[in-house]
Amino acid sequence: MNVLILGGAGMVGRKLIDRLARDHGLNGQPIERLTLADVVSPEKPKGLGARVETVMMDLSAPGGAEKIVASRPEVIFHLASIVSGEAEADFEKGYRINLDGTRALLEAIRRTGDGYRPKVIYTSSIAVFGAPFPEAIPDEFHLTPLTCYGAQKAIGELLLADYTRRGFVDGVGLRFPTICVRPGKPNKAASGFFSSIIREPLAGDEAVLPVPDTVRHTHASPRAAAGFLAHAASLTHAQLGDRINLTMPGISCTVAEQIEALKRIAGSKVAARIRREPDETIARIVAGWPQRFDARRAAAFGFRAETSFDDIVRIHIDEELGGVIQ
Amino acid sequence: MNVLILGGAGMVGRKLIDRLARDHGLNGQPIERLTLADVVSPEKPKGLGARVETVMMDLSAPGGAEKIVASRPEVIFHLASIVSGEAEADFEKGYRINLDGTRALLEAIRRTGDGYRPKVIYTSSIAVFGAPFPEAIPDEFHLTPLTCYGAQKAIGELLLADYTRRGFVDGVGLRFPTICVRPGKPNKAASGFFSSIIREPLAGDEAVLPVPDTVRHTHASPRAAAGFLAHAASLTHAQLGDRINLTMPGISCTVAEQIEALKRIAGSKVAARIRREPDETIARIVAGWPQRFDARRAAAFGFRAETSFDDIVRIHIDEELGGVIQ
Repeated sequence: MNVLILGGAGMVGRKLIDRLARDHGLNGQPIERLTLADVVSPEKPKGLGARVETVMMDLSAPGGAEKIVASRPEVIFHLASIVSGEAEADFEKGYRINLDGTRALLEAIRRTGDGYRPKVIYTSSIAVFGAPFPEAIPDEFHLTPLTCYGAQKAIGELLLADYTRRGFVDGVGLRFPTICVRPGKPNKAASGFFSSIIREPLAGDEAVLPVPDTVRHTHASPRAAAGFLAHAASLTHAQLGDRINLTMPGISCTVAEQIEALKRIAGSKVAARIRREPDETIARIVAGWPQRFDARRAAAFGFRAETSFDDIVRIHIDEELGGVIQ
Repeated sequence: MNVLILGGAGMVGRKLIDRLARDHGLNGQPIERLTLADVVSPEKPKGLGARVETVMMDLSAPGGAEKIVASRPEVIFHLASIVSGEAEADFEKGYRINLDGTRALLEAIRRTGDGYRPKVIYTSSIAVFGAPFPEAIPDEFHLTPLTCYGAQKAIGELLLADYTRRGFVDGVGLRFPTICVRPGKPNKAASGFFSSIIREPLAGDEAVLPVPDTVRHTHASPRAAAGFLAHAASLTHAQLGDRINLTMPGISCTVAEQIEALKRIAGSKVAARIRREPDETIARIVAGWPQRFDARRAAAFGFRAETSFDDIVRIHIDEELGGVIQ
């Protein structure tokens, strides 16, 4: 199998590669060729038993998309995105990468004109929804995003669904909940603090909490995210029908409950490393985000996430800290 | 007031101009300057008491949008569209006009960068929805279009809402039901027969019905459509909040009920001019369309349509046939 990961240098991309290595392939088939593309040079993964190529490229640059599909990858994971905070701050860049980049990919595939019809797995986001919300957001809830990022992701979903309906690609869109605990450095996502308040204290550092701890949100671990992606590759258009964009499952909890889980697992001393420093911009963005989902279709199609936030903290300690808390 | 109508040569554009003439302006203010732009040369309307300019242009052509907003119109009616049947048949043209054209307009306004923030009234469509549907589609129903046209309109709505949220324009999106009875020649819309089966028999001609007469659909007259547009110009972002895209009201009835109304008003001889000739392509497109709406928000904001299909037939006879049935 020939697999392409766009945004392969990012955190979710790396977790997906680990997962493919662990599974010795995708959909029970070995991967002969894997291309990792990103705006920064992706690290070459080990232990995959595939011919791996890394490409530094911008999907929205002229000819970029054509070049990357020239080898006719059978499965394309499209994870490349400008994150929410940056897309809001840099209006043009957000639209260029998140909208034009996605459209360029779909157009490059369509324009091959030779019956090439890859599986395209697109990471969307719960940011496609915008307040006010019912207590739990059903699968049929409308798309009224309140950020540029959310608007761009919703547009990407619509394009993917239309190109799929017309038979140009075989698409699945996955609305990721917030991925928590993100390893590594904070990125520019407005949702970054949901991870920081767990990650930094566990590493012995101070974390900043910019919102009240009554804020409720839905989370899934990086391990679950990689699982969503791998599972999506196994689904067919015939199974999904025309509604190919699915809200992924996750754990809905408040910031206070996140902190309680941290305390239970790592103790009060660790949890005391969270400093409250309200930030109105972040609070306003987060207030427009959904809190809880009734993600029935995803569950029916076999997507699985963690069942408690304690599990999410434990996965981080296992996978990123070698079991050691500072 | 300086008003621009994009798609000013089309049927809805002409009905809007008649309405502006009858109202002696818009929002109780006189119109000093009116620009009508279209891909064909719009007719110069009479009796408007405004300086009228007609422009032949393609909104998606380089520089076109910049030129058309150079006079800084305060209200822009964006009615320009490739219709559903044509957008499905010509994939590239549909995306170019319906998506790129709309985005070019919004970008041209944003790039003025001088605080220019016009009211933009965008005609969307109920084609943003896709089957399966509940019995009546609520205002919070999701957007899963099943045509290129619907996808392009849904993307236009998302762009309009995002540009409005960011303060670049003051947008209102109106999801039109099928406009019936369309005067003049049939256009390439897959929904054309809903009008033909009334218009042609009333004019003494035969009409073709390509779908079963159990098909249910929602209609509003051209007069109601012009009313929606004029009314939208009076609404403010403060009133609407961030959910600026509204499903318009209309009459939900079956094709059989349409034919019954025609019989009641024009007699059986006229109704007998409808010939049944099933067309699978049209039937398939129409089967993916919504049938009935619970358009509460639009009603709450004061949008009004007809209350019976008989009224729709009578309006056509009054406005287009001078009261005379063949």
